[in-house]
Amino acid sequence: MSRVAKALDAHGHDLLLVTPSADLRYLTGYQALPLERLTCLAVNSSGQAWLIVPKLEQPAAVAAGVLEQGIDVLAWNETENPYEILARAVGHVKNPVVNNSMWVEKAHHLQAAFGTTVSLADNILADIRMVKTQQEIKALHEAGAAIDEVHNQMGKWLRPGRTEREVGRDIAEAIIAAGHDTVDFVIVASGPNGASPHHEVSDRIIHAGEPIVVDIGGTMPSGYCSDSTRMYACGEVEQEYVQMYGVLQRAQAEAVAFARPGVTCESVDAIARDILAQHNMDEFFIHRTGHGIGLETHEEPYIVSGNTRVLENGHAFSIEPGFYIPGRFGARIEDIVTCWDGEVTSANNTTHDLVIL
Amino acid sequence: MSRVAKALDAHGHDLLLVTPSADLRYLTGYQALPLERLTCLAVNSSGQAWLIVPKLEQPAAVAAGVLEQGIDVLAWNETENPYEILARAVGHVKNPVVNNSMWVEKAHHLQAAFGTTVSLADNILADIRMVKTQQEIKALHEAGAAIDEVHNQMGKWLRPGRTEREVGRDIAEAIIAAGHDTVDFVIVASGPNGASPHHEVSDRIIHAGEPIVVDIGGTMPSGYCSDSTRMYACGEVEQEYVQMYGVLQRAQAEAVAFARPGVTCESVDAIARDILAQHNMDEFFIHRTGHGIGLETHEEPYIVSGNTRVLENGHAFSIEPGFYIPGRFGARIEDIVTCWDGEVTSANNTTHDLVIL
Repeated sequence: MSRVAKALDAHGHDLLLVTPSADLRYLTGYQALPLERLTCLAVNSSGQAWLIVPKLEQPAAVAAGVLEQGIDVLAWNETENPYEILARAVGHVKNPVVNNSMWVEKAHHLQAAFGTTVSLADNILADIRMVKTQQEIKALHEAGAAIDEVHNQMGKWLRPGRTEREVGRDIAEAIIAAGHDTVDFVIVASGPNGASPHHEVSDRIIHAGEPIVVDIGGTMPSGYCSDSTRMYACGEVEQEYVQMYGVLQRAQAEAVAFARPGVTCESVDAIARDILAQHNMDEFFIHRTGHGIGLETHEEPYIVSGNTRVLENGHAFSIEPGFYIPGRFGARIEDIVTCWDGEVTSANNTTHDLVIL
Repeated sequence: MSRVAKALDAHGHDLLLVTPSADLRYLTGYQALPLERLTCLAVNSSGQAWLIVPKLEQPAAVAAGVLEQGIDVLAWNETENPYEILARAVGHVKNPVVNNSMWVEKAHHLQAAFGTTVSLADNILADIRMVKTQQEIKALHEAGAAIDEVHNQMGKWLRPGRTEREVGRDIAEAIIAAGHDTVDFVIVASGPNGASPHHEVSDRIIHAGEPIVVDIGGTMPSGYCSDSTRMYACGEVEQEYVQMYGVLQRAQAEAVAFARPGVTCESVDAIARDILAQHNMDEFFIHRTGHGIGLETHEEPYIVSGNTRVLENGHAFSIEPGFYIPGRFGARIEDIVTCWDGEVTSANNTTHDLVIL
């Protein structure tokens, strides 16, 4: 909280307003759903903090330990105007900022109550959250081990004749059984569906010899997320695919081997992209190489062309090149890696080979 | 979409912008996660529509059938500015509105690209979504039957000596097994934790004779949500609680019996509240009586004091009075009910009695 106060001051702002989001959980440990009722943290540049919550959520906020952090809790009743209660408590401010993922509805009402426009907190919060502590890195590796446990059981569920949806349901149950609190996404993309990177599941029946993209993740009780993609097939697949997969596997491994504190995000992207380009496969690699991960599945730093940010200790991100050929098939291999002590370590350690079941 | 165009025109607006949300799914059938990359539907007051999507999500958007709806799909590459691409395609607009739950970050960038301020779509979308079709009502009853199936198995999991978290994990698996696509929330609040209406789970061990609030819900493949609360105990509970529970049960039943097209939302709230007040229990009923439900767990109409909206055919909402006594215990009974043909029907049909396991 004191880092936030300092950062606000350095950027010329006098108040930060944060509604339920990973930002709120990061700053207070309080995990609330982004719903219609206003829950909002306010931190001024002196480090004074308030949390307004619906009265029915006051016990949950208190149980999360917000009082011990010196945060003044304001509870509002269903028929009161929480925006005005918060503005009165905080007093006059000139240049407040809000978390980027705040609902625009909340931002509009806050603007009206505070009588001033609000700007985006933008990098103020992202810069702080991006550099993980050792404990956060540990939590990401625990999440990685949990999702690895699910990948290691894939042979139980992936069988010709079953639909993607049936398999997806089994995977979702296993994600919870492996220790996650929530299932965040389950992609089971068989055959031509694999060419759609963000396909989820469908009623398509899985056939023998088809490559199947399985990209899965959830959130652990710690709040930290898992995210890992592996490739499977029920029986041998066509030779052309195997060759392309070999190139992809090398591209992913080389990008992981190259990534380390001191190199730029875009240079990691370029390593994977260049190897695919050497085999005329870059036109089929239609997304960035990776995204940061922490309390959110997607956060800074993004491993993308144009991002000149230099990797440093505490960064955690995915390395996940892929290829997608419309109407035919697709592939992606994804690990979460973390930077610590000048090294990069993968949180995902199941085989990177195409797994033939 | 034509209803949106008409409503826009009637409210003096020339463009609606909608990022991933229940609003987007309602309008297009396309379900996308609200993430950092821009996905945005634009509909002008002539009914012309565009959807900008990240290139990697183009196949998923097309698979959702957006082209068949006459929506022009614009795909952007990772290194392009999607806001400018969208603004160029749509052309000059004067008075655009955005979905209320759009991230303020997206709204700011859209304002910059369109060169104009954006207002909230507010009731334009809510008024349309609030009145469900027969098919939507059916989907809500299917969701209700699925969550009832989970409540009916509670005896398998709730046992003295287990923690709330262990029980919650079993429930989460069962929510998926019962046909939901996602687990949206699992509240297992034992003993004093029951006094916190939005408690989720904790490592607290369940003891015999304690009332346990179980409030659970998920989203079905149809997109429609379930939400039902029932009360349990492992063994007999103290007499004072049983008496208070009897009052609550009557308050909930009377509110359900009273609710029907033609009465106001606040009058339904008052029925439950007055019965609790007759027994000096209203001070412990610290939240509204209910919320609308559909593609979101919480949406219009809200069953709350001050809401003079008149219920009509197609409305669907929860009726969930409760009482919460800090440090001791709590209780809530919740059904989702729907209005059709002048009648109210409950989507939740497990026993409303305190279930002694």
